[in-house]
Amino acid sequence: MTIRYPNGRPFQPAKASSTHKREKIDYSNRGMTLESDINETNSYYLTHGRAVIHKKPTPVQIVNVDYPKRSAAVIKEAYFKQPSTTDYNGVYRGKYLDFEAKETRNKTSFPIQNFHEHQMEHMKKVLAQDGICFVIVRFTTFDETYLLDASHVIKAFETKETKRKSIPKSYIDSYGHLIKIGYHPRVDYLHVVDQVYFS
Amino acid sequence: MTIRYPNGRPFQPAKASSTHKREKIDYSNRGMTLESDINETNSYYLTHGRAVIHKKPTPVQIVNVDYPKRSAAVIKEAYFKQPSTTDYNGVYRGKYLDFEAKETRNKTSFPIQNFHEHQMEHMKKVLAQDGICFVIVRFTTFDETYLLDASHVIKAFETKETKRKSIPKSYIDSYGHLIKIGYHPRVDYLHVVDQVYFS
Repeated sequence: MTIRYPNGRPFQPAKASSTHKREKIDYSNRGMTLESDINETNSYYLTHGRAVIHKKPTPVQIVNVDYPKRSAAVIKEAYFKQPSTTDYNGVYRGKYLDFEAKETRNKTSFPIQNFHEHQMEHMKKVLAQDGICFVIVRFTTFDETYLLDASHVIKAFETKETKRKSIPKSYIDSYGHLIKIGYHPRVDYLHVVDQVYFS
Repeated sequence: MTIRYPNGRPFQPAKASSTHKREKIDYSNRGMTLESDINETNSYYLTHGRAVIHKKPTPVQIVNVDYPKRSAAVIKEAYFKQPSTTDYNGVYRGKYLDFEAKETRNKTSFPIQNFHEHQMEHMKKVLAQDGICFVIVRFTTFDETYLLDASHVIKAFETKETKRKSIPKSYIDSYGHLIKIGYHPRVDYLHVVDQVYFS
């Protein structure tokens, strides 16, 4: 099986330090299915004039760039930076839309420790500006995908220290909104956005 | 003088191919002043709860990543990609805000050839979704900074092939809106946004 980067390029193992590779690849590929579903959906929305929503580029700290003669600049040394916002944002019916997508293999709850402080701060500020902000959560075991308003995630995150590190699935069943999975678009979350935020 | 990357790291010349370097550096640093003014302004807006507007990370095509033992992943080979959107977006008073910032040393007109097709398409789609979309133009010679609605830039771009490759400054004087330059924030463009889009 060829392992590929998000941009489609095949993964090339670096010979110098191969032992840590498998673990890292698994880590970075978690959420790929939901991510590719959402990217496909956004591109459907874009071409059909339904909305303009993009995934933000991965933030990278560029340290060293080489400018070879007669060819494109090559970044020779760079590091992944922690993003200070959510992954997706854009415009729908004049309103600002902002969300993060996460999937989990857990059956009974959605772990929130893979959100970080910055993202919570960002979501709070978006809500304060009257933006539409939510999380798309997929329980891969049941193949169920929910839209959950950011306010619930923020609340859970703020009690995380003292109480729990996850949101129970029963809570998401009650306060979230199931997104129907289709063929084209695959995750028609705007259908739910219409019901939740525009009616 | 130390030349620095946008992230603050000093520029390190690569010995192998030094002849093309000066030209490239000048190119990539065009617009740095306006860019840093806007970044400062956005960070002011963010901390004062006025708006949530971020610069999108530079899109990079990652080709090769090394995972050294016990330290952070190092991107060993990557290339700059052409962005498919504008540089800045976010939320202000519930509305989606989207813009690009450019400065020019020209005295009589604002050249539009450094916009590319993708960005024009993006701006059109944002306007179609009822988003607020504009360009911030600085004439460095006069130290004048204008907000110009995206519709004007799109119109000029579409007649570019046949007629002109720039927007006359007199046109921007008439249809744009002068942004007062201050100390903190430096480029208070939301003041103009209030007048143009919210009144």
